Amino acid sequence: MRRIRLYVAYDGTDYHGWQIQKNSKTIESVLNAAISDLLGTETLVIGASRTDAGVQARGNVAVFDCDSRIPAEKMAGAINARLPEDIRIVKSDEVDLNWHPRKQDCRKTYEYRITSGKVQLPTKRLYSHFTYNNLNVNAMKKACAAFIGEHDFAAFCAAGSQADSTIRTIYALKVEKEGNETVIRVTGNGFLYNMVRIIAGTLMDVGLGKKKPEDMAGIIRSLDRTQAGPTLPAKGLMLVGYEYDK
Amino acid sequence: MRRIRLYVAYDGTDYHGWQIQKNSKTIESVLNAAISDLLGTETLVIGASRTDAGVQARGNVAVFDCDSRIPAEKMAGAINARLPEDIRIVKSDEVDLNWHPRKQDCRKTYEYRITSGKVQLPTKRLYSHFTYNNLNVNAMKKACAAFIGEHDFAAFCAAGSQADSTIRTIYALKVEKEGNETVIRVTGNGFLYNMVRIIAGTLMDVGLGKKKPEDMAGIIRSLDRTQAGPTLPAKGLMLVGYEYDK
Repeated sequence: MRRIRLYVAYDGTDYHGWQIQKNSKTIESVLNAAISDLLGTETLVIGASRTDAGVQARGNVAVFDCDSRIPAEKMAGAINARLPEDIRIVKSDEVDLNWHPRKQDCRKTYEYRITSGKVQLPTKRLYSHFTYNNLNVNAMKKACAAFIGEHDFAAFCAAGSQADSTIRTIYALKVEKEGNETVIRVTGNGFLYNMVRIIAGTLMDVGLGKKKPEDMAGIIRSLDRTQAGPTLPAKGLMLVGYEYDK
Repeated sequence: MRRIRLYVAYDGTDYHGWQIQKNSKTIESVLNAAISDLLGTETLVIGASRTDAGVQARGNVAVFDCDSRIPAEKMAGAINARLPEDIRIVKSDEVDLNWHPRKQDCRKTYEYRITSGKVQLPTKRLYSHFTYNNLNVNAMKKACAAFIGEHDFAAFCAAGSQADSTIRTIYALKVEKEGNETVIRVTGNGFLYNMVRIIAGTLMDVGLGKKKPEDMAGIIRSLDRTQAGPTLPAKGLMLVGYEYDK
């Protein structure tokens, strides 16, 4: 028995998120079907991140076990041949049988994109949140510092989360302008439910002048969801990828 | 009676191109329906460029005539409210009643995008042609010079074209690398049927080493379609926009 690791990119637009659901097309179910078809036996993946409907990924991670002799690095191409074009295996390799994608020390990076302008360009509509307003990117940059480090991020966690602890570490949080898009890029050891979309909403409030950079520390300390900004829509969110310590 | 000019952006993925057709959804038909609904009377646009199925635009141009008192610059928002999100009016203004979008001196710019890599990222799949091969961008840059100026581009015109003349002027042709995408950007006074996709296919052949930069002048002189490269797929093509002399 071997454990194969997949780095998975997808456009989440036409899916009900990652996690398998009855009667709904999800990334996980389509992936399971493709791998089961390749191996000729029912095979289930274990995913690292259960992204929501409409969220994109360049590097989600999943593993599955098999007895196949297909070389690990060839699995990507063989599975891609059985997947629709909106899901692609970027890379495949072999890991220890006890390697679990949700039980490893890792650095995980997300991007959130916001377009400012008079209209949303149609080719950006599925991958970027839109606002008519210009954002004050310098103020947003100043607001980032307060998030860095280990904090209790209860104020940035959606109701209904099943996390045991709301303590997480953010290693990096940056805001950059790319053309008429504002890109928020955050790296941490893990994120609470909707945490990135709430951080993006809070930074957007700063960009709109509704909140000040110096308000951030107090919002984090409050542990109160109502103090933070709105949860921005799923479509602006991209799971960039995972880096594992080993 | 007034003539209103629209600058139109769209994602052509779900349309059978610009031009109105029986029983098919086209950009033109959806635009006509939205404007007719706004004005309460059947109204038809005249488009500048009849783009093919799957081609994108940031700035196609269309005009329509009306008696409405809605200020010209407010038309964009009023029409957008009646359009699907994959078509957006970027700007609207008023022009002379004899101003015709296909009978004006203009500079027209297209972009063609080619992604090189091990897999096509799902979020790029609708807007960029994909190849497993790396392209020699320096060779492609060298190949551009031969195209500049007024030439008979018969070698770069698809069969079935109804153009009276195959002479066109190219003002600028540039190749640039943006991440793992190669972007070909061309500006001319007009383009023959499939001309930009054939130029892109010919430059791609140069990038793949199948043709040399110094072959370009001879291919143009040959006036022979079989000497030029393949017609690349529609989805990599974006009509960037028009500049009019007045």
